[in-house]
Amino acid sequence: MTADSVNAFVPGERVVIPGKPGGPLDGLTFAAKDLFDVAGHPTGGGNPDWARQNPVPTHHAWAVQTLLDAGATLIGKTITDEVSLGILGENAFFGTPTNIRAPDRVPGGSSSGSAAVAARLCDTALGTDTGGSVRVPASFCGLYGIRPTHGRLPLAGMLPQAPSSDTTGWFARGAETFARVSAAVLGEDVPATLPKRLIVAVDAFGFADADAAAALQPMVHKLARLIGESREELLAPPGLSVWGRAQRTLQPWEAWQTFRPWVERDNPRFAFSVARGLVLGAMVPESEHAWAALMRREARARLTYLLPPGTILCLPTTPFPAPPKALPLDELTPLRDRILCLCAHGGLTGVPQVSIPGAAVGGLPIGLSILGAHGSDATLVAVAQAMEVA
Amino acid sequence: MTADSVNAFVPGERVVIPGKPGGPLDGLTFAAKDLFDVAGHPTGGGNPDWARQNPVPTHHAWAVQTLLDAGATLIGKTITDEVSLGILGENAFFGTPTNIRAPDRVPGGSSSGSAAVAARLCDTALGTDTGGSVRVPASFCGLYGIRPTHGRLPLAGMLPQAPSSDTTGWFARGAETFARVSAAVLGEDVPATLPKRLIVAVDAFGFADADAAAALQPMVHKLARLIGESREELLAPPGLSVWGRAQRTLQPWEAWQTFRPWVERDNPRFAFSVARGLVLGAMVPESEHAWAALMRREARARLTYLLPPGTILCLPTTPFPAPPKALPLDELTPLRDRILCLCAHGGLTGVPQVSIPGAAVGGLPIGLSILGAHGSDATLVAVAQAMEVA
Repeated sequence: MTADSVNAFVPGERVVIPGKPGGPLDGLTFAAKDLFDVAGHPTGGGNPDWARQNPVPTHHAWAVQTLLDAGATLIGKTITDEVSLGILGENAFFGTPTNIRAPDRVPGGSSSGSAAVAARLCDTALGTDTGGSVRVPASFCGLYGIRPTHGRLPLAGMLPQAPSSDTTGWFARGAETFARVSAAVLGEDVPATLPKRLIVAVDAFGFADADAAAALQPMVHKLARLIGESREELLAPPGLSVWGRAQRTLQPWEAWQTFRPWVERDNPRFAFSVARGLVLGAMVPESEHAWAALMRREARARLTYLLPPGTILCLPTTPFPAPPKALPLDELTPLRDRILCLCAHGGLTGVPQVSIPGAAVGGLPIGLSILGAHGSDATLVAVAQAMEVA
Repeated sequence: MTADSVNAFVPGERVVIPGKPGGPLDGLTFAAKDLFDVAGHPTGGGNPDWARQNPVPTHHAWAVQTLLDAGATLIGKTITDEVSLGILGENAFFGTPTNIRAPDRVPGGSSSGSAAVAARLCDTALGTDTGGSVRVPASFCGLYGIRPTHGRLPLAGMLPQAPSSDTTGWFARGAETFARVSAAVLGEDVPATLPKRLIVAVDAFGFADADAAAALQPMVHKLARLIGESREELLAPPGLSVWGRAQRTLQPWEAWQTFRPWVERDNPRFAFSVARGLVLGAMVPESEHAWAALMRREARARLTYLLPPGTILCLPTTPFPAPPKALPLDELTPLRDRILCLCAHGGLTGVPQVSIPGAAVGGLPIGLSILGAHGSDATLVAVAQAMEVA
């Protein structure tokens, strides 16, 4: 595949910045979602009016600088859903990056251009995950992807969406590269010991399409053998749809706070679905917002209870593999809603999550995710690595 | 002024179709708002996704065919606010046509490219008026403009917005051309006799900025002398803002019905303000819609009572002259809301209205409007002609 045929990179001048020689990521290449600042280049944000109406950054984002300092070479900026508001990876202005594992399917979003990693155009890619934007493209493209513990890594120079849920994540094709990059960005060695207990989230498997849940079973069995002890539990006793509703109250409300000054000043262009999300965010009643904040507290307590040190939980990253490209909006909207229900725990609770590739439904990739307690990011990476070897 | 410097015409191939020789409009040139079909050319609708996603028309719109048959030559298609959803004339995709009478001001919309008439690039222009889209640019650009009786002229080949309010109108620089074009399109001679009674809408003059109301006084006095008898009345006893609210309930509700299949299929791009209007239209509760339908009945009864044959009413076309270009959205929105209050009677009641140029506030044009009973379109044109001569 060529860069042009994949359409993963932002059009125009290609950004190339060599990494610091001799670092732990020497020899690796990376791309950065166009929400990350690269000094001297506009941060496009996936929207033509964002780049035009915002200043060119003078510093690299923390995550970009960290990868460069660790020796990786930046080879481009990747297409994103508009200002990270999208989960499918179809951008009305810049097009849809090709999911080479499923060329007639969407790549997932909003870190859609991370499909470049699957297409072997780079070794790793920086993405962002607020409501699923690393996890979903990882699942749809057959990649490793991490949403780190919320608040663990600096977000300086990353275009925000909903700060109480925003994280910086990354992707890789193989577990060894994934572990190398993770150790460098997390600033922590990947541990040699694995967790002792596995929870299988029965509600999440039940929420997925039956063929997707079935396709993931061999991975679940392998994981259970690796960890030793396993049991079934509900991830979200009130319902994944109730948690989904809470996240989809908090996140659009906060996104509207983030983008309101820009929108009210510049009246930017958006795909209808993106503008609709902002309008609905602007209209969230205070009573709904207050309810969702309570639900978030309960969700955090639930995951603290479920995930003491040494315990991880597994669930399908997405309820199905990538949907076809260019579906009508009224067919996409219910698919999006189901995807977000399986992702809501991330934004609500801030626990780290790694999506592991290895299953497929009718040839289309789908990921198995593992969650752990706050701060257990490197342990989840260790599990992903052990799964590849086992 | 050149066509390029005015930016009134849709970019790309320029459409030129000669009129039928020997007709009453022989020697005149016209432009058609890009909501009117011209056979063999895409109807752009002021939105890049409309033209791309809709078929190229095979027939001229009724209004285009009528002007061609009467001898006028089509010399181009003019820029419009996106799918007629706008009142200021700033299009995020195609730019803002130049208002040559006020170059740092907006031209008014949605028939914004009719500014070409003011710039002497053509003699007349076809526009559409649902909630003010002919009247507002006529006022802001210092042109004659008509919103004909609703339901009088065929709308075949005109992109609809809210059919219970949609009309086809036109513009001219001078009263004589305005009368010639009006007679040809209305299919009716302009009468020699004038109405006998004038109503001055005190609420509408009170709703306008004080300097705008003052600037229109000489025209009101001239009109009163011409007609003979005059008195003051309220146009809208419940309040212009209440009628404005009713129209802004009915029109967006209906616009959503019109555009919903396209939006739900194609998820098109819009400026935020346009998408917001559609989302709000989609959210109008049935109880609000039913209330607005009752208010429309009352408004119709009010105008039937005020405007028996032989009576006309005058009001400021707009509450102020054209606002500056490129204002922030949060400053534009309240200006738009005030403009729509002075226009709401048109969509609500369907009476014809002519905006007459001739006043200015600090050098910026503003129009005086006259209303008459349903079907009195030609009489209003006769009054406009008599005002120029008097």
